[in-house]
Amino acid sequence: MTKKFVYKFSEGNASMRNLLGGKGANLAEMTVLELPVPRGFTVTTEACTKYYDDEKTIDPDIKSEIFNNLKDLEKTTKKTLGSVENPLLVSVRSGARASMPGMMDTILNLGLNDEVVKSFAKLTNNPRFAYDSYRRFIQMFSDVVVELDKARFEEIIDQMKESRKIKLDTEFTAEDLQEMIKKFKAFFKEIKGYDFPQDPKEQLIQAVEAVFRSWDNPRANVYRKMNEIPYSWGTAVNVQEMVFGNMGDDSGTGVAFTRSPSTGEDKLFGEFLINAQGEDVVAGIRTPMHIDKLAEVMPAVYKEFTNIAQRLEKHYHDMQDMEFTIEKGKLFMLQTRNGKRTANAALRIAVEMVKENMITQKQALLSIDPKQLDSLLHPRFDDAKIANIKPLGSGLPASPGAATGQVVFNANDAVKWKEAGKKIILVRLETSPEDIEGMNAAQGILTVRGGMTSHAAVVARGMGVCCVAGAGEIKMDEVGKNFELGGLNIKEGDWISLDGSTGNIYKDKLPTQKASLSGDLAKVMRWADNYRELSVRANAETVPDARQALEFGAEGIGLCRTEHMFFGADRIKTMREMIIASSLEERQIALDKLLPLQRGDFEELFTIMEGRSVTIRLLDPPLHEFLPHDKEGMEILAGDLKMPYKDVADRISSLKEINPMMGFRGCRLSVKYPEITRMQIRAIIEAALNLQAKKITVVPEIMIPLIGSKKELDYVKDLVITQANETIMERKTKLNYFVGSMIEIPKACVIADELAEQAEFFSFGTNDLTQLGFGFSRDDAAMFLESYYDKKIFESDPFEKLDQEGIGPLVQMAVDKAKQTKKDIKLGICGEHGGDPSSIEFFHLAGLDYVSCSPFRVPVARLAAAQSALRNPRNKFVESLIEAGNI
Amino acid sequence: MTKKFVYKFSEGNASMRNLLGGKGANLAEMTVLELPVPRGFTVTTEACTKYYDDEKTIDPDIKSEIFNNLKDLEKTTKKTLGSVENPLLVSVRSGARASMPGMMDTILNLGLNDEVVKSFAKLTNNPRFAYDSYRRFIQMFSDVVVELDKARFEEIIDQMKESRKIKLDTEFTAEDLQEMIKKFKAFFKEIKGYDFPQDPKEQLIQAVEAVFRSWDNPRANVYRKMNEIPYSWGTAVNVQEMVFGNMGDDSGTGVAFTRSPSTGEDKLFGEFLINAQGEDVVAGIRTPMHIDKLAEVMPAVYKEFTNIAQRLEKHYHDMQDMEFTIEKGKLFMLQTRNGKRTANAALRIAVEMVKENMITQKQALLSIDPKQLDSLLHPRFDDAKIANIKPLGSGLPASPGAATGQVVFNANDAVKWKEAGKKIILVRLETSPEDIEGMNAAQGILTVRGGMTSHAAVVARGMGVCCVAGAGEIKMDEVGKNFELGGLNIKEGDWISLDGSTGNIYKDKLPTQKASLSGDLAKVMRWADNYRELSVRANAETVPDARQALEFGAEGIGLCRTEHMFFGADRIKTMREMIIASSLEERQIALDKLLPLQRGDFEELFTIMEGRSVTIRLLDPPLHEFLPHDKEGMEILAGDLKMPYKDVADRISSLKEINPMMGFRGCRLSVKYPEITRMQIRAIIEAALNLQAKKITVVPEIMIPLIGSKKELDYVKDLVITQANETIMERKTKLNYFVGSMIEIPKACVIADELAEQAEFFSFGTNDLTQLGFGFSRDDAAMFLESYYDKKIFESDPFEKLDQEGIGPLVQMAVDKAKQTKKDIKLGICGEHGGDPSSIEFFHLAGLDYVSCSPFRVPVARLAAAQSALRNPRNKFVESLIEAGNI
Repeated sequence: MTKKFVYKFSEGNASMRNLLGGKGANLAEMTVLELPVPRGFTVTTEACTKYYDDEKTIDPDIKSEIFNNLKDLEKTTKKTLGSVENPLLVSVRSGARASMPGMMDTILNLGLNDEVVKSFAKLTNNPRFAYDSYRRFIQMFSDVVVELDKARFEEIIDQMKESRKIKLDTEFTAEDLQEMIKKFKAFFKEIKGYDFPQDPKEQLIQAVEAVFRSWDNPRANVYRKMNEIPYSWGTAVNVQEMVFGNMGDDSGTGVAFTRSPSTGEDKLFGEFLINAQGEDVVAGIRTPMHIDKLAEVMPAVYKEFTNIAQRLEKHYHDMQDMEFTIEKGKLFMLQTRNGKRTANAALRIAVEMVKENMITQKQALLSIDPKQLDSLLHPRFDDAKIANIKPLGSGLPASPGAATGQVVFNANDAVKWKEAGKKIILVRLETSPEDIEGMNAAQGILTVRGGMTSHAAVVARGMGVCCVAGAGEIKMDEVGKNFELGGLNIKEGDWISLDGSTGNIYKDKLPTQKASLSGDLAKVMRWADNYRELSVRANAETVPDARQALEFGAEGIGLCRTEHMFFGADRIKTMREMIIASSLEERQIALDKLLPLQRGDFEELFTIMEGRSVTIRLLDPPLHEFLPHDKEGMEILAGDLKMPYKDVADRISSLKEINPMMGFRGCRLSVKYPEITRMQIRAIIEAALNLQAKKITVVPEIMIPLIGSKKELDYVKDLVITQANETIMERKTKLNYFVGSMIEIPKACVIADELAEQAEFFSFGTNDLTQLGFGFSRDDAAMFLESYYDKKIFESDPFEKLDQEGIGPLVQMAVDKAKQTKKDIKLGICGEHGGDPSSIEFFHLAGLDYVSCSPFRVPVARLAAAQSALRNPRNKFVESLIEAGNI
Repeated sequence: MTKKFVYKFSEGNASMRNLLGGKGANLAEMTVLELPVPRGFTVTTEACTKYYDDEKTIDPDIKSEIFNNLKDLEKTTKKTLGSVENPLLVSVRSGARASMPGMMDTILNLGLNDEVVKSFAKLTNNPRFAYDSYRRFIQMFSDVVVELDKARFEEIIDQMKESRKIKLDTEFTAEDLQEMIKKFKAFFKEIKGYDFPQDPKEQLIQAVEAVFRSWDNPRANVYRKMNEIPYSWGTAVNVQEMVFGNMGDDSGTGVAFTRSPSTGEDKLFGEFLINAQGEDVVAGIRTPMHIDKLAEVMPAVYKEFTNIAQRLEKHYHDMQDMEFTIEKGKLFMLQTRNGKRTANAALRIAVEMVKENMITQKQALLSIDPKQLDSLLHPRFDDAKIANIKPLGSGLPASPGAATGQVVFNANDAVKWKEAGKKIILVRLETSPEDIEGMNAAQGILTVRGGMTSHAAVVARGMGVCCVAGAGEIKMDEVGKNFELGGLNIKEGDWISLDGSTGNIYKDKLPTQKASLSGDLAKVMRWADNYRELSVRANAETVPDARQALEFGAEGIGLCRTEHMFFGADRIKTMREMIIASSLEERQIALDKLLPLQRGDFEELFTIMEGRSVTIRLLDPPLHEFLPHDKEGMEILAGDLKMPYKDVADRISSLKEINPMMGFRGCRLSVKYPEITRMQIRAIIEAALNLQAKKITVVPEIMIPLIGSKKELDYVKDLVITQANETIMERKTKLNYFVGSMIEIPKACVIADELAEQAEFFSFGTNDLTQLGFGFSRDDAAMFLESYYDKKIFESDPFEKLDQEGIGPLVQMAVDKAKQTKKDIKLGICGEHGGDPSSIEFFHLAGLDYVSCSPFRVPVARLAAAQSALRNPRNKFVESLIEAGNI
């Protein structure tokens, strides 16, 4: 075996994070910096993946390597594992590439057994401490390594407290603890059938294996999925000499941040406990003291610690999160890492460190997690004010933001109440496309069923409306217009509040505050704009969305979904009249009524966008989405249209589809009903001309959805151009406009070279491309996706994060083919992935020109685009040379 | 202009079909062979496509080229167009690459005008003939070139007949005809506002343009779609000196085939009319004589003609379809082409010509249209017996074959009546997956709605059951169990007969005859097998299908759809119990009941297939397809399962999907319910072991459907192998088996290299790949596809003929990637395209190992595979050299 699977701390450094895990790499780095770190070694993450590859066995060669390193550790520390003269005790701790705090297992005090504990008692001159250490070890080992029921040990302790009439663990005497150890060991033998292992080497190997195993425990799996940490990474294991914070009042343990992780303030922030081990801090029985207090209690240690903290921050160029232990007045560093922080803290730290010249603007930009910004960009509850309010219950945080309003139970009511000037929360079992109007009228949406990619969640995120989805605890009575939650009955009209960032549901009206781009965030955004190579646009069609998009720095609209414009109360009836029409003439009458409304929408949008790019997508959804499907709705429609009910019902039924996602929609509507497209084009062009007359330059980008073949694009583009030019000619003027297509059908990627002959731009619709490329419907995937996560077939939701195994290559193929035909074709993406940082990095690398996302995601996208460019500059210089023909 | 757009007949030959069209190329060939062909020239198909490219104008240069050729023709014939001394008259005829009989326009006698007709009357010494020719010319020109209403000319003729009290056209005198000409011209001027064109050159150019235009007429478009002739080909135009078969009793015209086009008998077959022009034959007013009669009437001409016929057949190595005219005792050949023929004739001619050493086996194989065979492979009505029976009505010929049976109106009745020993025809408004059991019980299926790719059509073709779909004339009363058609009311239990090859619906019971592979067909199939490089398997899961497949020469089963096995009356209940189960335990109980049934199915299938390959696909459709969706069905199910109705209804509703095609199906079922897969694997393996015990070697090929990612395949393959090996171990024996996957999701094509690491074979599911690749659902596409055909966006149905623009490249990508990983991976295709000749050619070229199709398509596929190999041999020799490392 030539590969090295174990590294002494002195052999590693901070750059070896992938191999040694975060904790191991930083322990090594601190060792190399000659900081006071207890000595030890790290079993690598590769040993862990090998453990899983070898069907959960540790290779004998790796075991020898561990024992060889143990021998070296014994030499360095001049202590020996299992020795009764001078026993070495060690901790065994997990440490993955990415921090996964508390998700995996730790064993302390390893090396103790019935004999060693006796001499340890003598050597420390503290029998109580020694036996306490041993009983803690037995508990941890039994829990972590052999998975005995923790609660049973607590029961034994409680029984002993009762019989001794004491309340606190600390009141146990050394003798009590010896008896407790006996009871623990007896219980161990009773359950396992063999004695508690006395051989420290066996203890060690079992502990290492247990840490490896804990990589695959359920909470680790959940955490990884939430944080998109690949299962394949594995964890390292750190074996380190024990130091004890619980050896008296000159000992202690604590954690500290070099700056405040919640506000970012540049001030040491942390807490410590005197005479305690790390687990006591976690247990929360004793209240720790603020780190400042250490200056009073142990001034020398405090000084040493603050020096180390400053040194580490400067060394790592980032705010540090440190663990330390003081053993009999001597400080030991047990961990340092870049500290987790709130979005606000991240911004402030970044800005201030740049001011301090500790980091560059580029480093500052790379230090902020773009996803975190999301929480700053929506209306929020005042954290301080809601801290003490218990939520009624919770659901999935499906669309961030805070909302407060009066409960309504259907979309019609939502619209009516909104029109009456009320703020409302729409509560539904689940939503469907028919609810869109009501969803748009709501401050927030609450559903009982459905996951993070349910209709409600997707639409709400697109609208930037707060949504809590899948709140399964709710007992719903939609017809009776009330629901039960947290023991309360909530009726129509009652006030509730939703936190879409946490999923919490509150009773009553809670005050919210609006988000804005100011202060540190604004500064960071300006920096980001200096470095990014991708433009950032927003998906928007309403006036508030367009305003929000501009406020957040969108450079244009990348997707205006014209169908959303037809759901308004003043137009849905006409839209339905148009759809129900049985002849071209009837349809044209309805279209003539829709024309001025649609033209007005575009005029508003163009006015707000003041000459910026606006990409308008022609009508996309299947027509039945605009129609009522319940008897009552159909009756009303029949009345409105003065038609027999049966005719209306028949027409609606004839539009029903088995697979609407793959049905009669997108450009297929233009092919069958070119008159609809002609109306939309006329509206777009007339609006642009009207603005042009007011000296506002508008260059509309007309986008054809769902294109799948060259002749289809030929046909629809011809339709568009003929109508557009006719409309321009009518005014005897000129107007620039572009015609492009969505790329969202797998076949379109294959023939992108041909499509590029006609299209002036492409915009990737990665939502549909993902659905078709994977062959699963977003609406239905919930039925089986959970099993896919459980079985680690999927590690992330392909609708949130672009799949780079199969969908990415289709996008790349289309980009390459398109550029073969038309080198400077404008390429964008307007699916939900346009707001996801890892997907943005892909789009940057793939060579797109812009991403378009929900207005609330625009700052996230600006930062993610800057980070992508900083990590992988496209090397514009070389490109320009090639273009100029100099290469 | 360097390109040549006009060719004299003497400049062309038969190989120039693409440029000169079929008629032009063959006229040229006959000219070169020095047969008696009236002189002329051909305006090329390229001139036609240029005409369309130039927005329907003829380029001036092409016009000059036409006039130059006209001058040469005038020199050769010593006649001049428009001359009153020696006038040249010409015909102007269309002629495309592929024969499109009667679809485009023809103009005869061009060159006549008011002056020329007078001298023509003198020169022919036949004024009646001359004026008759002129009035025919005016009629044709007015119809074809300026599109006047034909009927109005007939009215004028009828009025004149009435006033003259005559009945036949031939009774008009020369004077009558002169008056008629005046009336025609007056009518022309009245409608068009200008005089009938007198300039013959103008007539000529207008006629050429009219022929070009007729390429795009509605009947030509329909014919092209039916025959898959690309719109882009265009037609050529033949300008040829007129010869006249109507110059007296020493003149005539006729058509003849060198062998019988209906039986293939080696005997001149045809008919002729004395003193007539071609259009008189078509008009059918006079009854033509059998060609043999010509030997009596004009023995010398007959002899010359039979000599020419034999010479042409030998020259072309194929049966010829000829047109000829006799002008005053002189024979002129006007056309020859390979004759269309029935399937039986095609086989007989091929076999006999090989026997006569006129063609080789390879040529024989290439001379037969594989699609034609289809009509021979299903039960048929006796053509002679039904010739005089008028059908009640007709629908689309959705699945070929003949069926006769008693009418039932729902699937349940179909099953019951079948069990009672009755033959039934299932008549439905449209079918859905719930009807499958009933469809399987039926002799034939008749639907009122739905097209060639409707559910009924697709399933029926798969089952090889006769189906007439979309018979819209039917007035249906499903509840009352009767329908009206052709003025009759047909009630439940009445006998009807369906011809799935013509779409005809007959009253009463008509005798059918079974198809078999014998005689010439069997011989041709044996030849085909010698040349093809693709194996041919069948899609089959029932005993009759498997037997039929073997009878038709299938080499194995390429797709056994296990879901079809669960629809039987003895198992659907247990299947439903399994699906409704709310816990693993309940589900396992139902699965235990299904196991022996499923095992039995496989034993039967393996027994029939006697060691041939059998590819078994694991359960594929969404579970809700097995469940009742109507209240009554759910109530019965609740009773069967002894469950509350509400629970059953809730569970069924929870399985409902918005886009079931992209839903919870295929291997997704295996991931969520591995126990279902385990049951299926156990059934397959135990069945194979049971046969092995009887010394029948079975190597099951287990196929996982809907695979979309590597980890998914890892998981399901592991599940399969673990269960399979466990089952084999239980018997303490050994068994070979293969595990492979469907490739039917676009993403699977992209990652085929990774999938090939795990899969031992791939089978392309081109049905789903087409749906997902195009992004449209086969069930819903009917809503817009018609518009796509009308607007020439699509020219063929991508579900019938593999789309080679976008889907073909995905298949090719997957093939290439798969072979990169595993050079000898077995590759097949089991979508409906497996039985389509043009798609088979693609699969051959793509490098697949086999195609699998409906049993009734197996002979079609065998022939198509042979033709593919003959046209494009894969050059196995070179391949073997490469493999051996010698290249």
